[in-house]
Amino acid sequence: MTRLAQAFRVPMRHPGDVSGIAALIASGELDPRTITAILGKTEGNGCVNDFTRAYAVQSLTQLLGPDSHDRIAMVMSGGTEGGLSPHFLILATAQTDAPSNAAGALAMATAFTRDFAPEEIGRMAQIHATAAAIRAAATQFDTIHFVQIKCPLLTSERIADAQARGHSVATHDTYHSMGLSRGASALGVALALNEIPETALSDTVIGADTTLFSRRASASAGVELMRNEILILGTSTAWAGDLTITHEVMADAIDTPALHRALHAADLIPQDGQLPAHEEARLIAILAKAEPSTHGTIRGARHTMNDDSDINATRHARALVGGVIAATTGRTTLFVSGGAEHQGPDGGGPVAVIARRRG
Amino acid sequence: MTRLAQAFRVPMRHPGDVSGIAALIASGELDPRTITAILGKTEGNGCVNDFTRAYAVQSLTQLLGPDSHDRIAMVMSGGTEGGLSPHFLILATAQTDAPSNAAGALAMATAFTRDFAPEEIGRMAQIHATAAAIRAAATQFDTIHFVQIKCPLLTSERIADAQARGHSVATHDTYHSMGLSRGASALGVALALNEIPETALSDTVIGADTTLFSRRASASAGVELMRNEILILGTSTAWAGDLTITHEVMADAIDTPALHRALHAADLIPQDGQLPAHEEARLIAILAKAEPSTHGTIRGARHTMNDDSDINATRHARALVGGVIAATTGRTTLFVSGGAEHQGPDGGGPVAVIARRRG
Amino acid sequence: MTRLAQAFRVPMRHPGDVSGIAALIASGELDPRTITAILGKTEGNGCVNDFTRAYAVQSLTQLLGPDSHDRIAMVMSGGTEGGLSPHFLILATAQTDAPSNAAGALAMATAFTRDFAPEEIGRMAQIHATAAAIRAAATQFDTIHFVQIKCPLLTSERIADAQARGHSVATHDTYHSMGLSRGASALGVALALNEIPETALSDTVIGADTTLFSRRASASAGVELMRNEILILGTSTAWAGDLTITHEVMADAIDTPALHRALHAADLIPQDGQLPAHEEARLIAILAKAEPSTHGTIRGARHTMNDDSDINATRHARALVGGVIAATTGRTTLFVSGGAEHQGPDGGGPVAVIARRRG
Amino acid sequence: MTRLAQAFRVPMRHPGDVSGIAALIASGELDPRTITAILGKTEGNGCVNDFTRAYAVQSLTQLLGPDSHDRIAMVMSGGTEGGLSPHFLILATAQTDAPSNAAGALAMATAFTRDFAPEEIGRMAQIHATAAAIRAAATQFDTIHFVQIKCPLLTSERIADAQARGHSVATHDTYHSMGLSRGASALGVALALNEIPETALSDTVIGADTTLFSRRASASAGVELMRNEILILGTSTAWAGDLTITHEVMADAIDTPALHRALHAADLIPQDGQLPAHEEARLIAILAKAEPSTHGTIRGARHTMNDDSDINATRHARALVGGVIAATTGRTTLFVSGGAEHQGPDGGGPVAVIARRRG
Repeated sequence: MTRLAQAFRVPMRHPGDVSGIAALIASGELDPRTITAILGKTEGNGCVNDFTRAYAVQSLTQLLGPDSHDRIAMVMSGGTEGGLSPHFLILATAQTDAPSNAAGALAMATAFTRDFAPEEIGRMAQIHATAAAIRAAATQFDTIHFVQIKCPLLTSERIADAQARGHSVATHDTYHSMGLSRGASALGVALALNEIPETALSDTVIGADTTLFSRRASASAGVELMRNEILILGTSTAWAGDLTITHEVMADAIDTPALHRALHAADLIPQDGQLPAHEEARLIAILAKAEPSTHGTIRGARHTMNDDSDINATRHARALVGGVIAATTGRTTLFVSGGAEHQGPDGGGPVAVIARRRG
Repeated sequence: MTRLAQAFRVPMRHPGDVSGIAALIASGELDPRTITAILGKTEGNGCVNDFTRAYAVQSLTQLLGPDSHDRIAMVMSGGTEGGLSPHFLILATAQTDAPSNAAGALAMATAFTRDFAPEEIGRMAQIHATAAAIRAAATQFDTIHFVQIKCPLLTSERIADAQARGHSVATHDTYHSMGLSRGASALGVALALNEIPETALSDTVIGADTTLFSRRASASAGVELMRNEILILGTSTAWAGDLTITHEVMADAIDTPALHRALHAADLIPQDGQLPAHEEARLIAILAKAEPSTHGTIRGARHTMNDDSDINATRHARALVGGVIAATTGRTTLFVSGGAEHQGPDGGGPVAVIARRRG
Repeated sequence: MTRLAQAFRVPMRHPGDVSGIAALIASGELDPRTITAILGKTEGNGCVNDFTRAYAVQSLTQLLGPDSHDRIAMVMSGGTEGGLSPHFLILATAQTDAPSNAAGALAMATAFTRDFAPEEIGRMAQIHATAAAIRAAATQFDTIHFVQIKCPLLTSERIADAQARGHSVATHDTYHSMGLSRGASALGVALALNEIPETALSDTVIGADTTLFSRRASASAGVELMRNEILILGTSTAWAGDLTITHEVMADAIDTPALHRALHAADLIPQDGQLPAHEEARLIAILAKAEPSTHGTIRGARHTMNDDSDINATRHARALVGGVIAATTGRTTLFVSGGAEHQGPDGGGPVAVIARRRG
Repeated sequence: MTRLAQAFRVPMRHPGDVSGIAALIASGELDPRTITAILGKTEGNGCVNDFTRAYAVQSLTQLLGPDSHDRIAMVMSGGTEGGLSPHFLILATAQTDAPSNAAGALAMATAFTRDFAPEEIGRMAQIHATAAAIRAAATQFDTIHFVQIKCPLLTSERIADAQARGHSVATHDTYHSMGLSRGASALGVALALNEIPETALSDTVIGADTTLFSRRASASAGVELMRNEILILGTSTAWAGDLTITHEVMADAIDTPALHRALHAADLIPQDGQLPAHEEARLIAILAKAEPSTHGTIRGARHTMNDDSDINATRHARALVGGVIAATTGRTTLFVSGGAEHQGPDGGGPVAVIARRRG
């Protein structure tokens, strides 16, 4: 028997709507015991008080059983700004008697850190634990293309808890803690994948030195967990199936040529700037990060994301990058996740394409 | 002497910053007496309580003189969501002794209605006055490509005023009044340009029948005026210069192929999905409308713009369409204005490209 | 055996946190089989896309069993603006061998309508079904002091569903539908309690004629249900216990004297404008409605709630009325619910005080 | 001749509406040459991108002349959340041949620091310059009751400017910079008024040590200036007139008894928890600060202000404190300004009452 990566994309009518997954199971298309990971794009604000993520996880757990949360990486990313469409992406590891794919097939693995103490969030402890978990799980891939991480954040309560125990925290600003946690997680990926040497890392560079980044990390923070949940995606000639994955780095938020390169690498060919319907049908998923540049400009023109006190900067960035990718793919069901600290260069971010091979 | 259309694009550091225009005047590039219109993309919310538009107009009036507001169409559109960059677009009508352009050159004219009473906003009176003003000004064009209108809205005070005089208003929801005013203005364009017969129009279709629309209208509403201020853009063989204008209709918010057609019509050729720098340099301006589809979907996938009570739907739509056009042009200094009621089909909208001819 | 009304107030750390109720059950203080109603103040936006209510209900159902939702009125009201504190209020109907209270004790009953079709929401059908349900349940009270209703709203999907079946809906604006649904529910209370004659009611007065209102209705709308769930609170000499309830109507949002009257009626005496700690300890709960006045002023001074496109008007109103009641009671754990259409006069609203009798 | 403090309160229809002040001048009630300070409560978000403050100042400058900004302290505070009503408070220093008031009359003075460099904002340099300016102006008062300061903030541009010159800034978070600037300004007041010894102050305590605070400082930050503009209010037996001022410190956001003490000190007597109309008529102005407690609770109950990523915490706090003061005074035309860092205790803040003496 050979391992076979499967991927299913189903819409969500609201954050508690898991009927699309239930239907896949009921029809026999999806064996729930094979589910490796569920990525969800939920319609919250993607920030501190986004409870749509926890609500979706609770709903998934009701459907899949009380132990499902332990064996399945559930990566909910809040925020469907602009035209982004709420949906689940279910990744499963089935067994097949088909031969493995000599050209390399999509392969996946999950890893989990221990629960972090509040005072560890956004600091070296989070980097080290993340890197260790990835290294332990990385052996089975020929190439790792994307590492998706769900990580915790600080709340007023958690800060108070650390302080009551005599510990400082990385920040007292709960919103800011999301960025530090994402940043530390991404630097953990960079460390594990040898993109950055350990000597370059310290508490002080986290969230500060934008020249340090992973080209394959994507992290999103949520209030509903205290550990890092890690999903590794790559290719392996030991796996079967006609799915593949490619990745690229967008140099800024409007780097359409990078998207075209990632699509072409997956043999998806745009026409008049957009995938025609027959090509779009082979596009399984796009996973991307969005972030406002800290220097306040895009190609020299000022953006207002960082100075807007009505709408959080990550919400603007998701809307923008969602628009850029929708322009290129002709689709709004995209996993665009906000906050790309140390995930790609300042203002840009990694993007992965999961596609079905032609023919 | 022949008329020559000029266009200048300058950044804005904040809504009161007119230093870019002052510099153009100081350098002699721009003669302030020739200014026909100033379009501004200001960083407000683009909704009822967006005072960045009035602040920009007051700043422009301080710079250009107390009578400037009467002779110059000042069309401020609030909202730089996503990556949109605050800027002014100054359109001037200079005189030249160069010959007129036999291939047709960019030409422009302005028109103004009388002040409306609150009870006329969003109703047939606004349609008729708008159409009459356009027809009177339209004679000098070979082809009209775009009609940009700034129109009023209802506030609690204006509603109370109408009621005190015994009149009903089109809506008691001040935010909704912006849409009705834009819609009536756009239907005025459609009537003037013979896109829709007068018999199809009535108070009840305004804001309701999305099958009625203009392919060349763009309206934006602001609290700072009570009349419609109209800017007509087209081509004329009687004008001189190497600027031209094209237009297209985006069928939905992510209609990249329509953008490509409009760019190609202006001889601007994207590569890898985006204008390369040397082509982008010939792109003077893009004027476009953004709107969430009322049916709640984009190509069958649900969007959440209409159900989001934290961020107004027009803000989402501007971010999205701004991202789509930035993806295609490689630029964020775009005049994307929200609320496309009766301006293009439901969820789509007109787009105009002003460009310098090659060579 | 005599019926005994019990009331418990527990904090909520997040919308899915039902640990406070679980602790009451574990300690034996609360028998879950006796629960009549659970009111929750959750930290969402209280508007269309507030999923904290559904998340709380799902969490309560996990705790109390799959059938609990059918026998317990779960009234979640989103929005803890200003200083309001997220909490649950659990109302139970126990049995006691103590004698009934000749002075009248707190008594309660629940009632449920059938599920409404989208086209019935905000129309006479909702009024009639609500009134009928209340009348059937009202017989056991000496005096009815407060009727709390949870009612449905329209979403883009529900509107599309009605239209697909050939029906119009009361409004196409999903946010506006919350007000029409609350208004129809409140008019149902007014009809049942003979505050308004049936002849005064019609589809057209709903949401329009602010002179028609109930002095004892409180309705809040949520996306998570399609029927009206009704909780009736009053006094009865057939019930036992030392709890009582009073009510008053705030004439506007800052009507502190009305609050003082309601507190005094429950023998709760403020000092220096606020309940001192020993009096505040006898205050079990305050239930109140908040609404921006439609005329845009409070005592002649303009408010900006209705013209703010960044924060919904109901959110402003909850923060304001929450502040007024907190000023008077010295407490922020208050059930202030937004949107008081036909619930008290324009800009004001009903308020109920549940208190333990002195001594 | 004796100095006479005058105070006028006029409504604002929008942030550019100075017609109320123009009418006072036209009627002869107000001599524009005597204006010492104008406090404005404008309807922006009170945060980084609140341009209503600059718009109001530009409008005032148009009315009062280009040099007015140099001689008049213009303190615009954005944010009219909840029920707060936009208005101007004009303070003037007239001359009278009436005798001075032996009981003490309202007196006022202004002071201005130099422009700060971005790297000085929120640091000791701002504290020292503020204290020096106050000390120089303080000699003429018997008692200083309130020091109102308008201070600058960091924007992305200003941060980049400091960095280009090789300087670090106190924070890279533009929103956070508002708090540090307010905090440094308040500590400058505390230093000048000998509330805190200089040895207790350093860069690191700013924004961090909430036990250090002034009982009489009120600071608000705005993007439109780079210096501190200071208005000192107190009493003096050398001034004439029947106006007086008192102050108190609210221990938390719902400290109604503190308000009652401040009102009683000014001989304003509430009934049923609120000033009756004839008392409210003698209340000229309330100046207060609002702030969410950093520990996340009010009297032990959790608030959600600090964890809300849709509405900034200062907006919640203004709505709350505005409600508390409106409850007590029966008025919504209140100068409640957000962000009380080092202005009163954590979660509380100073409040001043300007009133006309009885009789």
